[in-house]
Amino acid sequence: MQHVISTALPAAHPLASGRTAQSPLVRALRGDRPETLPVWFMRQAGRSLPEYRELRVGTQMLDACLDPELSSEITLQPVRRHRVDAGIFFSDIVVPVKLAGVGVEIVPGRGPVLDAPLRTRDDIARLEPLDPAALQPIAEGVERTVQELGETPLIGFAGAPFTLAAYLVEGGPSKDHIRARTLMHADPETWDALMTWAADTTGAFLRAQVLAGASAAQLFDSWVGSLSLSDYTRLVAPYSARALSHIDGLDVPRIHFGVGSGEVLAAMRDVGTDAVGVDWRIPLDEASRRLGGRTVVQGNIDPALLQAPWSVLEAHVRDVVERGRAAPAHVLNLGHGVNPDTDPTVLTRIVELAHTL
Amino acid sequence: MQHVISTALPAAHPLASGRTAQSPLVRALRGDRPETLPVWFMRQAGRSLPEYRELRVGTQMLDACLDPELSSEITLQPVRRHRVDAGIFFSDIVVPVKLAGVGVEIVPGRGPVLDAPLRTRDDIARLEPLDPAALQPIAEGVERTVQELGETPLIGFAGAPFTLAAYLVEGGPSKDHIRARTLMHADPETWDALMTWAADTTGAFLRAQVLAGASAAQLFDSWVGSLSLSDYTRLVAPYSARALSHIDGLDVPRIHFGVGSGEVLAAMRDVGTDAVGVDWRIPLDEASRRLGGRTVVQGNIDPALLQAPWSVLEAHVRDVVERGRAAPAHVLNLGHGVNPDTDPTVLTRIVELAHTL
Repeated sequence: MQHVISTALPAAHPLASGRTAQSPLVRALRGDRPETLPVWFMRQAGRSLPEYRELRVGTQMLDACLDPELSSEITLQPVRRHRVDAGIFFSDIVVPVKLAGVGVEIVPGRGPVLDAPLRTRDDIARLEPLDPAALQPIAEGVERTVQELGETPLIGFAGAPFTLAAYLVEGGPSKDHIRARTLMHADPETWDALMTWAADTTGAFLRAQVLAGASAAQLFDSWVGSLSLSDYTRLVAPYSARALSHIDGLDVPRIHFGVGSGEVLAAMRDVGTDAVGVDWRIPLDEASRRLGGRTVVQGNIDPALLQAPWSVLEAHVRDVVERGRAAPAHVLNLGHGVNPDTDPTVLTRIVELAHTL
Repeated sequence: MQHVISTALPAAHPLASGRTAQSPLVRALRGDRPETLPVWFMRQAGRSLPEYRELRVGTQMLDACLDPELSSEITLQPVRRHRVDAGIFFSDIVVPVKLAGVGVEIVPGRGPVLDAPLRTRDDIARLEPLDPAALQPIAEGVERTVQELGETPLIGFAGAPFTLAAYLVEGGPSKDHIRARTLMHADPETWDALMTWAADTTGAFLRAQVLAGASAAQLFDSWVGSLSLSDYTRLVAPYSARALSHIDGLDVPRIHFGVGSGEVLAAMRDVGTDAVGVDWRIPLDEASRRLGGRTVVQGNIDPALLQAPWSVLEAHVRDVVERGRAAPAHVLNLGHGVNPDTDPTVLTRIVELAHTL
């Protein structure tokens, strides 16, 4: 396979545990204020990039995730183009679910769709543990990527158990995730079995990425905003902690991100992460207040502003950075993933601006 | 047309402004604590009822809304069945949009879908004001309904301008409403024109219902949870206030409801309403705290619990009622609309329980 753009990266560096320790991203996640404000974008690898769209022609999404050459190249594309301070491994939160034998595909324009939703005790009892050998294409994709990235850190990621469970129970994307939220109350034992399986499956996926060389780990609980604090604390957080326990003892900082997470920010921090990702709904100074002023924050440029005139967007980015100073450290990012119709030159311009602030 | 169930209502009462003034609902909305805790359910008229599904066979949703005999009968069905303390007029928030000449249909399982999204300054400049004469089928549906309801109040309702604008700009339901949120920042003048039109169109729809006999009015801002407080206050709230100004001088209490509205509760109250509807994400005592302890609350049974065992649901309803005591008054409701697959006997049981609390 040919790299569509292949000039802009530093030469390959040997793998070494300390190779990214001095990077702005890792330093910020550890609570430091590096000279350069680190910036990356959720979903930076993907459809906003013409070189990605070209590379994906003829390949299904989950097949691309399981092809180490492709997943690595796609991960590197936005790092070359935007000169962001981190790559995030190109994959999907349902990849470990698929590798554990659950029938699921990513339907374009819709998201993950299961062959059949899992709704009963029997459905869930049939789930198989993930065979670690199945994660080999992930490990290989990460290894290739970090060799190319050199001193630029790679972020490994995984979906949190609740978000996975929402897809599994609903059978696909859903509004309010009411069937999943019903199950947690209607049949707590089945919920426990499902969430335990999800935690161990996604935890193994995250561990494989870190062992293969990722320098940080982000847990995405995309749908956490549908929960009350009480339900989150009692029926969700313990499983997120269990997922993260799979990387205990591996010395990488952890980020935890959710959409609409204003009510549960501190509880998300308390499952055992170093930094909390904040969407666009609350400003970072308010987020930091809710976190007791002692937690690193990531975010929170409103993706809706990416299509506003540059003067409006620039003022917003500067405001985000200014409010981020309320926290011990800040990693600049969007408040949600890059939309496919985003003009990628705008993202590059944000990186250039961030590196002057 | 035959009424499917037609026995359980009190005999028709003459229309009179004071006919529902002593009802538990109206008293609670005015800040009183009536002997009976008033209860009704958002989307109580609809697909959860077999008598509704029977009546709707062969009729499109928006055609049903514009047939006074049908809209009235559908509105009355849940009042007869559940003995709730209010009817809510059977309609849809896009009805006034359609009556103003915009091509829109309700697609089953999806929601309102426009013939073409409205995204440019020119699209929006072409919007026509709503001819008051077009509201005649609404007024007639309400008049028929209140004659049957007697001392039981009817709630009129309308969608808030932001929620309407989200449908208009996106062309249908959407996640995060990013195109609408982009427009408000990218082209504030066009946003102002769109929101002003939406406020006047939906305001006229609400006014027609109140003039025809509705005893209360609810403004639904379903998608308000996608907004930051800053955007809401600056770019949305003024238009919600404008919509409600259409019923200034008509002496009915006003309820304002949004989903995921924890960040904007007090700002929603401040557009000029008497009561605030709260979804399931925050408990009513916390909602009341955010409202300064001086605002009537409505809600907030979690719809996800409607399929839990009765003992779990009963404990939840009792907890909601107990926490609602933190507010000056409380109207019991769900935190969101009744799901179509809800067992309606559960709703009846909640009403029976509420009336003992």
